[in-house]
Order: sequence, then C-alpha cells, then structure tokens
Amino acid sequence: MTPVDIDSIDLFFNAKSVAIYGASASQNSVGQAIVQNFIKPQYTGKVYGVNPKYTQVLGIPCFPSLQEIEDSVDLVVVAVPARLTPRVFEDIARKGSKAVIVISGGFSETGPRGAEIEDEIVAIAKKGNVRIIGPNCVGVVDTHSHIDTFFLPEYRCGRPKPSNVANISLVSQSGAFAAAISDWTAELGLGISKLISLGNKCDVDDDDLLCYLGDDSTTQVICYYTEGYDEEKGRSFFDTAKTVTPYKPVLVVKSGRGQRAKAASMSHTGSLAGSDNVADAAYKQAGIIRPGNFEQMFDMAKALAMQPPARGDRVLMITNGGGLGVMTTDALELLGLNIPTPSSELEKRFNERLPAYCAVGNPIDVVGDANSSRYDVVLEEAIVSGEYDIFVVGMLLQTPSLEMDVTNVIANHQRSSGLPFVVVSMGGGFTTKAGEIMALMGVPTYATGEKAALAVKALAQYGEIKYGDKFNKTAT
Amino acid sequence: MTPVDIDSIDLFFNAKSVAIYGASASQNSVGQAIVQNFIKPQYTGKVYGVNPKYTQVLGIPCFPSLQEIEDSVDLVVVAVPARLTPRVFEDIARKGSKAVIVISGGFSETGPRGAEIEDEIVAIAKKGNVRIIGPNCVGVVDTHSHIDTFFLPEYRCGRPKPSNVANISLVSQSGAFAAAISDWTAELGLGISKLISLGNKCDVDDDDLLCYLGDDSTTQVICYYTEGYDEEKGRSFFDTAKTVTPYKPVLVVKSGRGQRAKAASMSHTGSLAGSDNVADAAYKQAGIIRPGNFEQMFDMAKALAMQPPARGDRVLMITNGGGLGVMTTDALELLGLNIPTPSSELEKRFNERLPAYCAVGNPIDVVGDANSSRYDVVLEEAIVSGEYDIFVVGMLLQTPSLEMDVTNVIANHQRSSGLPFVVVSMGGGFTTKAGEIMALMGVPTYATGEKAALAVKALAQYGEIKYGDKFNKTAT
Repeated sequence: MTPVDIDSIDLFFNAKSVAIYGASASQNSVGQAIVQNFIKPQYTGKVYGVNPKYTQVLGIPCFPSLQEIEDSVDLVVVAVPARLTPRVFEDIARKGSKAVIVISGGFSETGPRGAEIEDEIVAIAKKGNVRIIGPNCVGVVDTHSHIDTFFLPEYRCGRPKPSNVANISLVSQSGAFAAAISDWTAELGLGISKLISLGNKCDVDDDDLLCYLGDDSTTQVICYYTEGYDEEKGRSFFDTAKTVTPYKPVLVVKSGRGQRAKAASMSHTGSLAGSDNVADAAYKQAGIIRPGNFEQMFDMAKALAMQPPARGDRVLMITNGGGLGVMTTDALELLGLNIPTPSSELEKRFNERLPAYCAVGNPIDVVGDANSSRYDVVLEEAIVSGEYDIFVVGMLLQTPSLEMDVTNVIANHQRSSGLPFVVVSMGGGFTTKAGEIMALMGVPTYATGEKAALAVKALAQYGEIKYGDKFNKTAT
Repeated sequence: MTPVDIDSIDLFFNAKSVAIYGASASQNSVGQAIVQNFIKPQYTGKVYGVNPKYTQVLGIPCFPSLQEIEDSVDLVVVAVPARLTPRVFEDIARKGSKAVIVISGGFSETGPRGAEIEDEIVAIAKKGNVRIIGPNCVGVVDTHSHIDTFFLPEYRCGRPKPSNVANISLVSQSGAFAAAISDWTAELGLGISKLISLGNKCDVDDDDLLCYLGDDSTTQVICYYTEGYDEEKGRSFFDTAKTVTPYKPVLVVKSGRGQRAKAASMSHTGSLAGSDNVADAAYKQAGIIRPGNFEQMFDMAKALAMQPPARGDRVLMITNGGGLGVMTTDALELLGLNIPTPSSELEKRFNERLPAYCAVGNPIDVVGDANSSRYDVVLEEAIVSGEYDIFVVGMLLQTPSLEMDVTNVIANHQRSSGLPFVVVSMGGGFTTKAGEIMALMGVPTYATGEKAALAVKALAQYGEIKYGDKFNKTAT
C-alpha cells in the first residue's frame, strides 16, 4: 500500500468505537486489563467486549461475535490464543472494521507453526483492507484520545501525559520497552503524544507510522526503537524519512550492534538485525539522528521538542560554577561544537557590566556569588552581539545568592531572541523544582554537563539537517 | 611531609572542638552559615566563635582571638577576608591548633597579590606544623562525625547520609561541584562518608587524602574530581595510588581534556591541567579507574562499594524483556566484556526447568510472563555451573507476573554465591521502590542497560586491578 493511507492508520489512535476480542471477567487476565483501560472516564468512545462466555464484562456489553454489535466498530483489539485468530479475522472482515491490534503472542516469533497462522491472518486482512498492528505486542497508548491497549496495571506501569509545549511520539519494536518507557516518561514528566509497540510487524510497520506521525500535529519529535528492518521495508522507511526529516526531527535507537545481541533479537521478534555499517550510512542520508541509547534519545528529543533548531554551531556557555563550565565545554568540544571566545568588543562590554572577579571567556564564569542580574547582563550582551547560535546556561542553585527568578531571566531571553537555549543544573530537590519551572516555560534542563552538551549537539545536528547549506558551520 | 601524617589529616574529620574564625551574627553571611551547621544536635564536639565584635553567636561563645579559648581547639575554620588571614594564622600557631580550613577566596586564584598572601599563610603554618585545606573552598562534610563546613543552606544543598552497606568518599577541586554532588547524592540516596573540597590546595592535596582515605574504614571507594596536578605532586599521588588501589578502588574524573576547558580551569582554580595523554598512562599504571564524567563515576562507584570485584570477565544476562537483553548485551560487548553462551550441559538443565518458549542463550530471556521462580532456576543453575563470573539481572516490573519477591531471590543468590551482581530495571515509581529494596540488600540497581553494563565493567576492571594475573580474562 503506497502511499500510506493515513486515514487507515488514524483509526488506531482516534477510534470512536472499540471492541475487545477476548474481553474477560477473570481478574489479572489480559482480556480484563484492556477493558479496564477503556472504561476509564478519559476514553469517550464506545466500548464493546467480544466473548461468547459473557453478556457483560465490568459493565460493558459483551457479544459472541462482532456481527451482533449494531454500531460500526473502528478498532478491534485481539487478546485470544493465536490458534483462534484466523476465525477472529474472518469475523472482523465480515464486520468491516479496518484496524486491528493483535496483542496475543504465539505467531512467527515462536517458529514455523506460528508463522503459518500469522500468514493466514495477514491474508484474510489484506482481502478486507484491514490494517494490523502486532501480533506479539502491547499495542498503543494515545495520551490525547486515551486509546490504551497496554495490558499492564497503572500501579506498575504509569502512563505519560501530553505537555502543552511540545510532545514526543515513540514507536518501539519491543513491547516490554514500550511499557518501561511509558512508566519512565510518566515519572520524568516528559510530554508524550503516542507510544506504539509494533511487535512482529506483520502489517503496520515503522514506515507506515513515519508517514502518519510526520503529519500528526500532536507529535513534534518522532522516536524509534528498532532491532532491524527487512531489506525492502528498510528502503521505503529511509525514503519516507527523507521527506519527513526536513520539517520534523526523527531519532532512531537501533540495537543489535554486537554479534550476540543480533542472535538475541532474532529469537526475540524474529527480525534480522542487518549490517550496522550499512544502517549508519542510510540513517545519515535520510536525515535521521541516531543516539546511542534510550537515555540519550530522550535527552535529545526533549531539547528538539522544546527548542528551535540552531542556525549555526557557535555555543556560549555561561555558568556560576567554574567546574561545571569546564566539564560542559569539555563535552561540547568532544561532540564537535564550536565554542568561540567573545570578540574583544563583546569582552569589553561584559567587563564593563560584570564585577572584575568574573572570568570572561567561553565558558563565561559569573562565579559563585552571582545573582540573576549577572545572567541577564551576559545573555543580553551576547544575544545582541550576534556571535552565538546556541546558549548553555549553567545554574548551580546550592548557593542562596542565585534566586529562582533566574528561571524567568533565562526563559525571557530565550523567547525574545528565538535562539535555542539549554540549561544545566545539578543537584537535589530545589534544583529539580527549578527544572520543572523551566520546563513550563519551554526551556529544557539537564542534570549534567554531558547531557546538556548532547542536547546542544541535537539542536545543532537537526539545524544542519533542516537548513542544509544555510546552516552556519564554523567548527572544523 | 612524607609519609603523610594520618593523625594530622584525621583532625579535619574527627575534631572534638572547632573554632569558627569569622563567626557572625549577620544573616546569610558565610560566618553564620558555618556556625549554623555546628550547632545542629548531630555534631557532638565543642564549638567556639572567634570575632571581636561578639561575645556569642547563635548561642555559642565568641572570643576576640583563639588565645581566650581555655580548651584546646582541634580544627579552625577561617571565613575572614584574605588580607586578614596572616594575622589569623599567627593566632592559630600560637594556640597550637593543627588543622585549618580556609573557606575564604581572594588568594592565588585572583592573581599575584593573592598568591603572596597565600604564600605568607603557608609559611606561618609550616613553622607551626599546621595543616591547611583550601583556601577558596567549601571545606568538608563528614556524614559520621557531622563536621560540616559547607556554607550552603540545607534547603538548597542537601547533605548525603552514610549507608550501612558501603560508602563512597569524594575529593573535589571545585567547591561548587562538591556542593552540587552533596545535594545530588543526598537526593539519590547514595551512601557517602566524606566530601572534601580542596580549592587552591595550598597544603593538603589529593595525595594526602588518598593516604588518609586508603586507611579510612568508613570509606570503601575513593572518588576524585580534579582539574590537574602540578608535576611533583602528581607523581607522589600516583605513587600512593599504587599502594592503595590493590585493596580499595580509586576513581578519578579529570576534566580539561579540551583546549578551551584547560584555559577555563586555569582561571578557575589557578591549576595547570597538564597533558591528557600523559595522565591516561599514569592512571592506568597506578590502577586508577577513570570514568568519563560524574554520572559514570557514581554509577561505577555504587557497584564497587556494594559488590565484590569480579574474578573474571564472563557475564551472564538474565531478563524478562528481550529488548532489554539486546540493549544491555550490546553495551557489554562494546565495553569488551565476554558474554559466553551457556555450555550444552547448562543449556540442557535450563531447558529442563524452564518453559519451552523461554529463549535460552546469553542473554537468557525468561520472557514477559516470568515470575521470580524462573529467575531462581536460572541463577541456581548458572552459579552451580561455574561458567560465569558476573551476573546482570534485568527485571522489568511493569508486568504483574513478576512480584517484588524477585528482589529476595536475587539478593539471596548474590549473598550465597559471593559473586558480583548488578540489576537493571527501567521504569517509574514501583521500579524505583524495587531498586531501594535491592540497595538495602546490598545489590546495586540501574535504570538503563548502558549504566548496568558500565557497573559490570567497573567490577571486572577493578577485579583485574586487584587480582592481576589471577583474574580470569577470556575476552579478546
């Protein structure tokens, strides 16, 4: 199906009616856990169960098959044993539903017999123009529509919320990772729009979702975890990426760099990991950013979601702690950023307005007794000078001379200049609070100089992808 | 003074009587903040102020000079302007106190005039056999004796606690970093024994503290942040390290790898950063582990403090999430660890006792519906086989089939085998709780596969340092 039919994919996220095949009254079953998600008041669509054993489950009506449901059904969630799924798909095709998430395992990931069943359901689905996510997956969480097929209880697996600033969507081959990331991003308070676990990818794949998320106004950054592609699907994914990356950042964590990891991923989701070197070149050509791991991906995605891409690679670091300045500029230098010394003119202006014991340079150290007005002076002069493209603001809040109003000073300079800002602030509870305040004002904060440097790198790297020759690259 | 006089250094951490030179009644002054620390009920020694303006400060007696204090004074904390410090040191020498922390700045870090004053106080101190920490520092926090000269309020800068399992001590050239780390480790709940900020290092230096902490029974791992050494002091530090590292791990984060960072550190603490390549070789010869940054240092130190060093480099990963297994073994492979496949005998035993759909290999995937007894089976058989030196246990707790009792299973196998274990568990609140439980039982837990892999690397690296030729190195 080329080009991808956006509307068919949209049903997975915006279905107005959902049927749960395998809805169950037995506690702790997958079939009950999914019903539990849809009876929460947040989900405002219609919900039905399909299971001949019951007439209702947790208060929702339950039917022997989809045929008995009078209304149309946008999305079917399947949680029945694999061997029963061909009959389920015949029922789905007859009903005319167009989107199915198959949660159940026991398909191609288990061997040839399972693969046969998978082929069978795919064939039935194709005839009826039915799209499938899965099998062998946890499905979808949409934080806006509250479609949620993750069959994991909220006390174990928190669900993230959308931010009112900017949101990240994640596509994961691994269901366990999708769940862990749901739980983790909920705890971190990162703004998330959609989490999608693809499992065996028997139909809907990375490429379909890239087309869809590229056009999705609630998704500002697209993240992937993949263990590999088959050759043909890989090619179309990279082709699509070339059209998406000029206007929306795409980040991919691809595991399976090592030989052993490749063997493990083979048995995990039945996919071939492919050659890593080939992949690296393809990612680069397609404008895809490839972080080393999840932590780096979310550190980068946070900056890309909240801040504009950089127009060049000249970074100014301001700090009230000398050591923090040294560590951060070290990390920036290792990542290939340019950290130019202020011009003699700019240096003169700094010196006129700062106490003599401040160390003017890059990093510029406004020292331990700094208050927010020193930050104000430095940012004002540096922005007016036009000598820098990105600002890293180090604020160590252990010293009481630096009041919380520094958050306003930073956010206001960011907003009025339109230039990308990254804050680094290391510490405990007071520092965490300051980071939350910065986030509400749209500026990302990091706990270490290395994380902040990586965020800067992402903003420069994406600027280069977006602006191409117009990106002002000065570092050698 | 070679060898280092341990008793003279011990006064900085175990002084039974302390005088604060510059004790002050004015709120938010450094002289008041330090008094505030010592009047907390935790500190059980005697406290005096020295300041001609007052007869008491916050209820403690205050004297015009040390001479008026009847008792002996073990430790003097100096918080008066630099120009007054030579007179203060004459008073100290007359009184016979042997340990002084100079908090004040305005010395060699500000230029030649400050350097002259610094030379002057060093000369007076030498004559009287007085040891100095600083100047231009925040001094010392000892979590056992509650000596605490950090002049930063607790609501901004939390103080860590000692753990009853094992503790880390940190020596930092940068005061701001020492404070940020105090705050950060307090939040993380890491067990800390001592934090020491060295500032300009006019007398007590990295080497003195290495001698002292090497013998300190409350310190299990020694960490350093340094921006450089002078040549002579560097040599003696590395000589001392050779004698300490065979029985206690030493980790150093040295910044200033980049040219720009070097310039910044010069103006920050007046120290020469030195050539980075020379330093690398020296660290290796001395058995010092050199993490890339603070986060890595504390991830490694946590494992080294809690777990025994490895006797070899053969790692087994067990997981209930395939993706987590892939990511972690990827990271282990990149770090040069050996991840051998189970022998056919061991594989047979696993297969006999695990469900057929588990993926036996390395990683061994006990899959998403695993309960703690599958972990029990795998760890029991793997330990008996003798095929592995280190165990990485991945537990994704989003799935309700894995109960909290898995923490007992893991801790019991660790204890009875005496082999090093590292846990990796990614998620939110429930996961964090499990990590806290594991910590109480002495097993370190990490939020990502990469962090866990780094911890494994530290345990293997230190095993190699400790056991030399007897370390079973199998990876090529």
